[in-house]
Amino acid sequence: MMFLPLLAAGVLQRQPWVAYNTKEEDTARSVGRYPVPNKKDMPYDIMELMEEIERKTGFLPNVFKAMSHRPAEFRAFFAYYNTIMNKDTGRLSKADKELIIVATSVVNRCPYCVIAHGALHRLYSKQPTLADQVTVNWQLADLSDRDLAMLEFALAVCRADTITEEHFQKLERHGFDREDAWDIGMISAFFAMSNRIAHYIDLRPNKEFYTMGRMLSGEKEKEEA
Amino acid sequence: MMFLPLLAAGVLQRQPWVAYNTKEEDTARSVGRYPVPNKKDMPYDIMELMEEIERKTGFLPNVFKAMSHRPAEFRAFFAYYNTIMNKDTGRLSKADKELIIVATSVVNRCPYCVIAHGALHRLYSKQPTLADQVTVNWQLADLSDRDLAMLEFALAVCRADTITEEHFQKLERHGFDREDAWDIGMISAFFAMSNRIAHYIDLRPNKEFYTMGRMLSGEKEKEEA
Amino acid sequence: MMFLPLLAAGVLQRQPWVAYNTKEEDTARSVGRYPVPNKKDMPYDIMELMEEIERKTGFLPNVFKAMSHRPAEFRAFFAYYNTIMNKDTGRLSKADKELIIVATSVVNRCPYCVIAHGALHRLYSKQPTLADQVTVNWQLADLSDRDLAMLEFALAVCRADTITEEHFQKLERHGFDREDAWDIGMISAFFAMSNRIAHYIDLRPNKEFYTMGRMLSGEKEKEEA
Amino acid sequence: MMFLPLLAAGVLQRQPWVAYNTKEEDTARSVGRYPVPNKKDMPYDIMELMEEIERKTGFLPNVFKAMSHRPAEFRAFFAYYNTIMNKDTGRLSKADKELIIVATSVVNRCPYCVIAHGALHRLYSKQPTLADQVTVNWQLADLSDRDLAMLEFALAVCRADTITEEHFQKLERHGFDREDAWDIGMISAFFAMSNRIAHYIDLRPNKEFYTMGRMLSGEKEKEEA
Amino acid sequence: MMFLPLLAAGVLQRQPWVAYNTKEEDTARSVGRYPVPNKKDMPYDIMELMEEIERKTGFLPNVFKAMSHRPAEFRAFFAYYNTIMNKDTGRLSKADKELIIVATSVVNRCPYCVIAHGALHRLYSKQPTLADQVTVNWQLADLSDRDLAMLEFALAVCRADTITEEHFQKLERHGFDREDAWDIGMISAFFAMSNRIAHYIDLRPNKEFYTMGRMLSGEKEKEEA
Amino acid sequence: MMFLPLLAAGVLQRQPWVAYNTKEEDTARSVGRYPVPNKKDMPYDIMELMEEIERKTGFLPNVFKAMSHRPAEFRAFFAYYNTIMNKDTGRLSKADKELIIVATSVVNRCPYCVIAHGALHRLYSKQPTLADQVTVNWQLADLSDRDLAMLEFALAVCRADTITEEHFQKLERHGFDREDAWDIGMISAFFAMSNRIAHYIDLRPNKEFYTMGRMLSGEKEKEEA
Repeated sequence: MMFLPLLAAGVLQRQPWVAYNTKEEDTARSVGRYPVPNKKDMPYDIMELMEEIERKTGFLPNVFKAMSHRPAEFRAFFAYYNTIMNKDTGRLSKADKELIIVATSVVNRCPYCVIAHGALHRLYSKQPTLADQVTVNWQLADLSDRDLAMLEFALAVCRADTITEEHFQKLERHGFDREDAWDIGMISAFFAMSNRIAHYIDLRPNKEFYTMGRMLSGEKEKEEA
Repeated sequence: MMFLPLLAAGVLQRQPWVAYNTKEEDTARSVGRYPVPNKKDMPYDIMELMEEIERKTGFLPNVFKAMSHRPAEFRAFFAYYNTIMNKDTGRLSKADKELIIVATSVVNRCPYCVIAHGALHRLYSKQPTLADQVTVNWQLADLSDRDLAMLEFALAVCRADTITEEHFQKLERHGFDREDAWDIGMISAFFAMSNRIAHYIDLRPNKEFYTMGRMLSGEKEKEEA
Repeated sequence: MMFLPLLAAGVLQRQPWVAYNTKEEDTARSVGRYPVPNKKDMPYDIMELMEEIERKTGFLPNVFKAMSHRPAEFRAFFAYYNTIMNKDTGRLSKADKELIIVATSVVNRCPYCVIAHGALHRLYSKQPTLADQVTVNWQLADLSDRDLAMLEFALAVCRADTITEEHFQKLERHGFDREDAWDIGMISAFFAMSNRIAHYIDLRPNKEFYTMGRMLSGEKEKEEA
Repeated sequence: MMFLPLLAAGVLQRQPWVAYNTKEEDTARSVGRYPVPNKKDMPYDIMELMEEIERKTGFLPNVFKAMSHRPAEFRAFFAYYNTIMNKDTGRLSKADKELIIVATSVVNRCPYCVIAHGALHRLYSKQPTLADQVTVNWQLADLSDRDLAMLEFALAVCRADTITEEHFQKLERHGFDREDAWDIGMISAFFAMSNRIAHYIDLRPNKEFYTMGRMLSGEKEKEEA
Repeated sequence: MMFLPLLAAGVLQRQPWVAYNTKEEDTARSVGRYPVPNKKDMPYDIMELMEEIERKTGFLPNVFKAMSHRPAEFRAFFAYYNTIMNKDTGRLSKADKELIIVATSVVNRCPYCVIAHGALHRLYSKQPTLADQVTVNWQLADLSDRDLAMLEFALAVCRADTITEEHFQKLERHGFDREDAWDIGMISAFFAMSNRIAHYIDLRPNKEFYTMGRMLSGEKEKEEA
Repeated sequence: MMFLPLLAAGVLQRQPWVAYNTKEEDTARSVGRYPVPNKKDMPYDIMELMEEIERKTGFLPNVFKAMSHRPAEFRAFFAYYNTIMNKDTGRLSKADKELIIVATSVVNRCPYCVIAHGALHRLYSKQPTLADQVTVNWQLADLSDRDLAMLEFALAVCRADTITEEHFQKLERHGFDREDAWDIGMISAFFAMSNRIAHYIDLRPNKEFYTMGRMLSGEKEKEEA
């Protein structure tokens, strides 16, 4: 099926993303600038995907609502997203991919992408502070040399720098081959697009993203006990 | 069918894009940095699409070859491209769309997109000098106020500016409603992605693009006579 | 007394800043680049201030440790800080001041100031998401026009723009008089200094700051119950 | 006593800074944007300090007048200034410190700091042209490699660059240890603050600063003879 | 004689620059913002030069018309131009000089200089695509290392960078001595001036320039046959 | 005669530019990077012009020495300079022209042009502090609205901004017509060239320029008495 559940990683099924879930609807402003169709007016495949996402994650990320204004573009956008984010070959972990998104979306000053993917990074990496560090200054974040090299390449693509053999050689010195370079570059490029779409539709993060994954699992257990 | 012929406009069928067609293969460098599979190793749908494009336009634009290195991403990329470039509602003509691509790709210094879409603009607009003008300085190009407003918005999205109500109001004063704004923004955003992909795969324009559409039709006829 | 407890607001006494307190020492790297003297080697006034801060807030913010490397500059720095941050005349609330620090420290990409003062903003404002929004893009944060005008002035000072009468008039339209403008400007200027000191001493935020104030008080109570 | 005479170097006592001293008051504009209290309304310690400065230097630099609008901040500002500028350990000469101020204040386009501290540099260094050279282009000034390295570090701090080990190693190659690096960094950081304060209070240099120290001492003597 | 025919290279005499020549006058806008005198009101030397240029090249480049508004400056400008562009010592070919003009004029976004000198480059180099490539991204153009080094120096001068010994050494590694460096620098500097003049007089390229030299000579012959 | 004495204004004959004149030769470094021919090897017209300049001004500005390395370019450069700087129609005074040169040469960080033309501005304007103010921050200099508008246009040309009708209208509101705009633009453009030449030849100001014109005439008389 084309639209694989985007966010349905096992970890998400085991723990709901947030401790609380406000049932009130987000206001129009927090979703974006374009009208969102009622569920009954949506194409069936889109409605079905949304319900699946909401069931698995406890809430519906605003990007799904906002993009449903244009069903054909909704399908194209998430098909592309799935292709690159759920690709399971290569050396990029799920956490790596989210870190690339955070670091590049900061350059474009995109609140949705920085805050939502910062949350996803915390979930996947189980490191509750790294995304915040990268948001302020990736060069000062507590990252391995490998991760710094990965972000350096992602940011060169993000800035639309001319990419040279030297860029690839630097990646290779940290264990990334040319296929990994493509993966890093493609994620950076895709979010160069996403950040800009988010700007003109004025997409805002769901408030659940702000707190998601901030507790260390040890403490979480104590709390839950 | 998913992959509608991307470039199959009537005009292309009537006149081959170039007066001459070198049969020699483009060198590896002119296609890009990643290997391109042999036709026999390609998935059938991709090979079929390529043959259709080549038959209709007289040559195969390098972007198809380069992206075939990753079949799943090839499909996602061109499906998205089709969705937004062949959308036939709204106020953007085919020439408008190409002009947006030229103006924004210049910012990202992407040779493939500027030169290939400059050529497409000449074909669609029948104006042989506008794309070159926009390449150097869009503010000084011989454009209507409507076209300047369109490019101004496209460039704000291209730079990942924070987009405000004022941006939309300015577009409205030139006859573009919010749906048109989405279309302009989406093309700008999609090519923000494409330009960056082109950089890391080192995509170069086919040489046919440089001369395509430079002759005025009147003169062309005289020449052909 | 010269060194008033910097951070000793009533709210802090009622609720410890963090639910947990790791007793392990922060590593050298997380404090900074210069050696920190042992308590017994510190001048008495500095040691005393530190103990008071730690007792009241549950941990000792790294800036105190790092600056103690230079006792005379420690005294000058915190005396200045006290003078402007604990000044209780004018229209700037404690939350306003922290928001100015967050917005300007982002420009200078200073992890300590963004993360520590983002935490203080959450505490003082009881708004758990605003500081994160301002960190990514202040223009898109859920702020009143008054707050936007305040940050706009603070950022003009932060960038060392030439400040004109127009800047003051814009502030006045949002209820800030010239004395408030001085206060906004002085905090922005002081943190232009602090951010740069933090860079060369490589000051890193205590990990307590990352989670401080993220829970809404309602939920907090429920949790504590 | 806390407020040591800031500018009271021996050289100043031997030779008045300017050959002429206009007794007319500087206009409001040349001091700044905020009102300056009458002497009789000033706190005694501030008035006393001002009189001492004026007696020793022949005129009262405008920064003292302007800051007296806020007595508590006046005290904090000049206490800090004294701490770092009159610190007499380390490898920075008085002329070095003034050169750092000139080079960094140029970046922030601060007329008061460039012109006043350019004058102080001429006095301390006895080199009448260096400050003017650094004002236009520090890289082309007639400086030793040591001085260029010192300014390079100061400017990295001034721009709020991320400071790395490489910065410190480069300083070390020119004889500056980590304590000197702190001193350079602190002066750069303090004037990052001062420049910005000067902008919002619209502080202008006293006209005496423009000519101070421009005569070589040999010629001066001849003139006086 | 002072005003040597600027553009009278042998190649131009053998082949008219354009296959067609619209006899209609260019509109006022396409020449520029200032009035152009009638031929009969022009000084004799200027009129004579213009007629010679037009006779030899098939049309009169707009820069001659536009500058004739100020006869004394016309003479000074073209005398300078001749001195540096027709200097026949050193290692710069005519094509090299035109490439320098294209690469630097792109930085200044000057339509006249990019398009007119791009055309001249095609004529002199017989390479129909290089100028277009340099217009978009000189780093990605199909250039030799020597040519890249030449453009790198020209662009450093164009940006008014501080030029160091390292710049000269890099040129020397590609066979350019210090006299060649002067020639490269002088052309870059002269067009820094020309680009700016073109901006304030709003100089636009003649339409002949857009197509000039795009045909490969082999094809041209076939066409002419 | 073509090369009118460039600097031979009456005022210069009445008062030598400097009170002292070191007879020692400037070192090679202070002139520039290229060798300067001996007088006996110079073309006669160049030697004659140099002697005239030196006789009238008391010393030979380094730009004459440096440019003599290339006699043909020497002639072209100073002929152009004369044409625009000694043009005596229009509303620009000699002081206005020098102020434009100072303000634009600061942008290009050219020590020779800022310091030499700052000196000339002091001489022509009899205002000893304005050039220094403009060097640091033209927006804060003690200038009339007319002078600010003049510099604003000059700086737009200096930055190679696209110049629009609005630029001309703003000048008109301050009494400058389109011919004055051309004069301002041409001086800005010519020094865009000069600054860049000065960079690659490493041209340094004569030390006489630093002190020239700093004394107010009243004081000067007293001194001389």
